[in-house]
Amino acid sequence: MKLSLAYLGPTGTNTETAALTYSAWVSKNRQLTTVLCPYPSIALALQSVEKGEVDLAVVPIENSIEGSVTVVLDTLWQSSNLQVHQELTLPISHGLLSFSQSLEQIKTVYSHPQALAQCQKWLESFLPQVQLVPTKSTTEGINLLQNDHQAAAIASPRAAELYQVPLLKPDIKDSLDNSTRFWIVRYSLRDLPSEEANLGSHLSLAFSLPKNAPGALVKALEIFAKREINLSKIESRPTKRSMGEYIFFIDLEGNSQDLSINQALTELSSCTEILKIFGNYHLLPISA
Amino acid sequence: MKLSLAYLGPTGTNTETAALTYSAWVSKNRQLTTVLCPYPSIALALQSVEKGEVDLAVVPIENSIEGSVTVVLDTLWQSSNLQVHQELTLPISHGLLSFSQSLEQIKTVYSHPQALAQCQKWLESFLPQVQLVPTKSTTEGINLLQNDHQAAAIASPRAAELYQVPLLKPDIKDSLDNSTRFWIVRYSLRDLPSEEANLGSHLSLAFSLPKNAPGALVKALEIFAKREINLSKIESRPTKRSMGEYIFFIDLEGNSQDLSINQALTELSSCTEILKIFGNYHLLPISA
Repeated sequence: MKLSLAYLGPTGTNTETAALTYSAWVSKNRQLTTVLCPYPSIALALQSVEKGEVDLAVVPIENSIEGSVTVVLDTLWQSSNLQVHQELTLPISHGLLSFSQSLEQIKTVYSHPQALAQCQKWLESFLPQVQLVPTKSTTEGINLLQNDHQAAAIASPRAAELYQVPLLKPDIKDSLDNSTRFWIVRYSLRDLPSEEANLGSHLSLAFSLPKNAPGALVKALEIFAKREINLSKIESRPTKRSMGEYIFFIDLEGNSQDLSINQALTELSSCTEILKIFGNYHLLPISA
Repeated sequence: MKLSLAYLGPTGTNTETAALTYSAWVSKNRQLTTVLCPYPSIALALQSVEKGEVDLAVVPIENSIEGSVTVVLDTLWQSSNLQVHQELTLPISHGLLSFSQSLEQIKTVYSHPQALAQCQKWLESFLPQVQLVPTKSTTEGINLLQNDHQAAAIASPRAAELYQVPLLKPDIKDSLDNSTRFWIVRYSLRDLPSEEANLGSHLSLAFSLPKNAPGALVKALEIFAKREINLSKIESRPTKRSMGEYIFFIDLEGNSQDLSINQALTELSSCTEILKIFGNYHLLPISA
């Protein structure tokens, strides 16, 4: 049996690196082979899981510089059947790919908006005059470089090798720590052969609050605080219904079979409008 | 004396509509004329205020569907001298501009990533197969339409008129309420002739928390909750130092001269790592 794995392609993206890393882990620890299925967007990769086209999707959820990948949060909230299966964190390395000989000749830089944002300070310092052109993946712009030696693309050093484009600058970054968390997402109603017997170490959930209830957020957060449950992340997104109404996304450390977490979730469901548990999953011990 | 006003141009963007609306308000209520100065990005518009090139910048801060404009939050946090002067909220209207006669012929849709995201559901329903191409402003793609009748751009009906491109669909939207909050940002060390004598009705601030302090966020939020100060928004952004470290952005209703708010801010400064007050400002009573 083979596991099929959707991701934001084409070949050479950072998500493909995550998918390959996950494949290697599955092969070593679950004795299963995987088939990688590139999709043109993160939303389509997630939808492919919900439609049953693939077993799993690997999607970026948060970058240490640029923050949450909001399309993943929004899609999980709107879906009824997507569950977080596992998590892995990878260091991200950006290079400047170009056939140009020097930075001075560069007039245009292509990349995915997340990568452009992650390299914002470097671009302002070293290429303040260039035109930044957002693309659908970090690799999309690479195909345009051969015919335009005044253009460059921000992509991984691996993409430079795959597409045989020189690395004008091998490592551009705004911060010493550039890493991305990826979630492996599954369809909740379907069994997977690699199922974990024990529940995971991390739990992610989201909730909306009753309208016109000042202090409702603090009340919800106190449920965790009084049990000393550590929230590793809190993030808000608009409900898309009207300005000022939010959905809160929370990551916490723990297992839903722990008594205190179990009680906290029960109490939380009584003071929220909608509560969704996205999953109780393991962080894979992978460093690339 | 004229007030100079930076904004994300070129002409026809939604931010220009906000800048024009603000100009009309200033002319009527402060008897001042304004000069509009388009900039190619939101970051450059904000930097122009800090450099003293202009008096004010008008920038989008939050959309009811797509959420915060993170570059504004990040820039305000990193700057020492930018202050929120006033706020205005405008309804946003998106049209589909094209020289094509029908939706079936459209192969490509251009727009700013925020506008593409705001119309995501509509695009999935009516144009599921098209290529979405992000641009630097809602108007940038309009120039490409004359030579490509299989392309369309998402922009305001006003832009369709200005650039003389037919409106194939006058009103595309994912939600009944599509509105954007704009902040008028000033340089804090500089006097403006239109200064308000009284402090505003809304206050925005951001803070980072001491490291390894579980429950620190709840403690900070309790400072407001116990005084029944209503938080209208809470949002997190990465510190960009390392994964899992956040800056929290809060909007609240009140005036820093109120005793309870004054006490809350003093208490907050003692339990946060860095606390920045972005401004205490009025919401302008404008509906477009």
